[in-house]
This record gives sequence, structure tokens and C-alpha cells, in this order.
Amino acid sequence: MRIALLGGTGDIGEGLALRWAYHTDHDVVIGSRDPDAAHEAADAYRETVAQHGRETKVTGFENAMAADRADVVVLAVPPYHVADTVDAVAESLDEDDVLVTPATGIKRDESGFHYHPPGAGSVTALVAEAAPESVPVVGAFHNLAAGRLSDLDADLGIDTLVVADDEDAKDVVSGIAEDIDGLRALDAGGLANAAEIESLTPLLINVAQNNDGLHDLGVQFR
Amino acid sequence: MRIALLGGTGDIGEGLALRWAYHTDHDVVIGSRDPDAAHEAADAYRETVAQHGRETKVTGFENAMAADRADVVVLAVPPYHVADTVDAVAESLDEDDVLVTPATGIKRDESGFHYHPPGAGSVTALVAEAAPESVPVVGAFHNLAAGRLSDLDADLGIDTLVVADDEDAKDVVSGIAEDIDGLRALDAGGLANAAEIESLTPLLINVAQNNDGLHDLGVQFR
Repeated sequence: MRIALLGGTGDIGEGLALRWAYHTDHDVVIGSRDPDAAHEAADAYRETVAQHGRETKVTGFENAMAADRADVVVLAVPPYHVADTVDAVAESLDEDDVLVTPATGIKRDESGFHYHPPGAGSVTALVAEAAPESVPVVGAFHNLAAGRLSDLDADLGIDTLVVADDEDAKDVVSGIAEDIDGLRALDAGGLANAAEIESLTPLLINVAQNNDGLHDLGVQFR
Repeated sequence: MRIALLGGTGDIGEGLALRWAYHTDHDVVIGSRDPDAAHEAADAYRETVAQHGRETKVTGFENAMAADRADVVVLAVPPYHVADTVDAVAESLDEDDVLVTPATGIKRDESGFHYHPPGAGSVTALVAEAAPESVPVVGAFHNLAAGRLSDLDADLGIDTLVVADDEDAKDVVSGIAEDIDGLRALDAGGLANAAEIESLTPLLINVAQNNDGLHDLGVQFR
């Protein structure tokens, strides 16, 4: 499988890229608005994985070119950039691709972090509205700490929740999720169930901030 | 500590009552609008715990009398009854008591279960608005499967998230939570952070419904 991480130079993009490169044989393509930044990130990720004893081919391209090369396209961009990123790559997507959104809307105030969804109801719903109608959208990878993914010596032992209205697309994304050692994919139903998943991310941050010794948190359903 | 479970004849009340009676030396008081129902539930819970080899004193009273006897008062009632239950027991509460709310607002549609908070922003916030000003309010026990609590042979190994603006009250509730074997209390900050905790409950139901072999789910933060 060829996986593109648009915005793959950012924290969550880096974490997922490193994990797929390290644990799987999938081709990892780093996308960025700036192709030079994409090349540099790809070089750095290859080097990090090589230091862990594994030769991989991670490549870097401008976002639309990255999307054009991929079977699965992950929108690893901040929530306020998901719509314009989808627009920028829309012509590179078709019904055989899967568009994956891990972003969530968060605002911070004096009490902590709160879920702050866009008007569409969730970031996932916003992506589904922005995507070409024929391209299946999957929500996944919302509740993973980027720092823990990026530390290839860290055990995961956590779950990711997957939502989609297209069952085949959901299976594809659940499969590439579980190809990462220590990550379990759980089916949370259709796209309409995304808001509760996205809400878990600010909660993870609040828990990490209020309890000594807990950081880079994930969850396990049990 | 004396713990009253208002609405303690319901599922979550039963689960918490059995766990406190079985694992701890706290006095458990079952409250109900109907004192006969409270007596009957208390008798049944004592019997269940006795069958597991432990003699306890669980008593039953009308809600206001139960609250009057307790140090910690848990509102184990449906979300649409929390405000009138607080009103009904308000004169039995004072600043030395702690009022605990485990309820969350959930609606169901064809896609699954969704968080449906009251206008106050969360059920926890609604309780804080309804409670006498001097009585500290704590949100806790939102994300526990009643069926798993009630099965005293079931291991827990899960977390409960605790929010409060009064740190002493939060410590009291975290303490009685952790007195239950296998339950860890995590601090999630102030009352303003309750909505993200309450949102986790419909997500747990969605995950249980969509994955074979998962039921009566809780979460562990890790």
C-alpha cells in the first residue's frame, strides 16, 4: 500500500510516517505545500528509521503530487487547513483512493482544553463535505500522542478508533493501523460518530496535564 | 465514609453500591424516591455481597433521608432527573458534604449514540448550577459500564476521570473511587472540563456495538 501523509512534516505526520516506515512494508510518501520541506522531512525520517536498523524508502513531494502517488491519503494538517488541503489535492483523488482525517478541533482556556468542532459538527464531517463525492472518507488516528509515535523505542499498546460510511475504506484504514505494532483499530461506526472520538483528544491532554507521570497519553478500551 | 447513592436502585447505582460494599468499609446508603424500593434494593445488594463472602450493612431510605445521612452523595439518576433530585435533597446538604454526578446526556440515532448535553454545557455543569452554592460538586464515574461493576467476579482494570473546582472534594471522591479494586481515579481538572468526559460514554457504547467480543467497556489511559 502507498500512504501519503499531507502535512507530513508536522508532529502527527512525523509520528505516523515513522511508525509505518519502521513497522511495515508500506511505501510512505511525505506531502507538504513546500516540496523542499517534504524532501527534507523524508530524508530525516529515513535516517531515523535507519538508526533503528531498518532501511526504508520514504519520499517527499508537494501535497498534490504526494496524493497522486498514494492509495491512502492522510490529512495530517491542522483542522483549519483541512478544507483547503482537500481542495488543493482534489484532482489527484479518485474513488480508488481513501482519504483519512486524524485532525480534531481544540480550544484552550484557563480551565484546560476543550473540544471545539467546526460548524460541520466535526472535523471529520468537514472533510467529508470538502472531499469529492466519489472519494471515501475515513476518520482515524485522532487520539494518538505524536511524541509517543515518533519515539520508535516507545511501546504503544493503545487503540485508534475508526469511523467511515464506506466499509471497504474502513477496512483498508483499520488494516494499515493494525500493521503498526501495538496499535489496535476499533470500529466506532459511521462518520456521524466522529465528534465523540475527536472529543477524546482534548480529554487526553487534560488528563496528562493534571496527573504526574502521565504524558503522551493514549487510551485502551477494555 | 458514608456514601449515599440517590437513584441507587438503578443500574449505575447498583454497580457502585455493590463495589463499595464489597471492596471497602464505607457505609453504603441506597436512596430512592420510593423508600420501599430503596429498602428492597439495599436488601438485595447485601445479599449479593454476602454471596461473595462478605457481610456488609447497606441501608435504604427515601432520597432526602439518604442524603441527610451521608458524607458523599452520588446522583445516580438519569440526566433529566438530576436537577429535580438536587432540589429534593438540597436541604439535606451542607458544605461538609460532597455532591457527585456520574450522569451524561446521550441521544441515539440511526448511526449510533451521541453526546447530547443539556443547555448548561454538560450534566456536570447542570448539577453545579442546581446545587446549593456552599456544596462542592464533583464529576466522576461517568465512563463505567454498570453491568461490569455489578458483576463482582469481573476485574475492572479501568480508569474514572474526576473533575471539580474544589480540590478537597476532588480528593475525597478520588479516594473512594480508588478504594474500589481495579479502579484508578485520574484528575481531569475543573468542572469546565466535564463535557469531554461525558462525551466518552456514548463513544464506549458505539465501540461496544461495532466490535465483536467487546462489551461493558471501560477505558484505561496509558
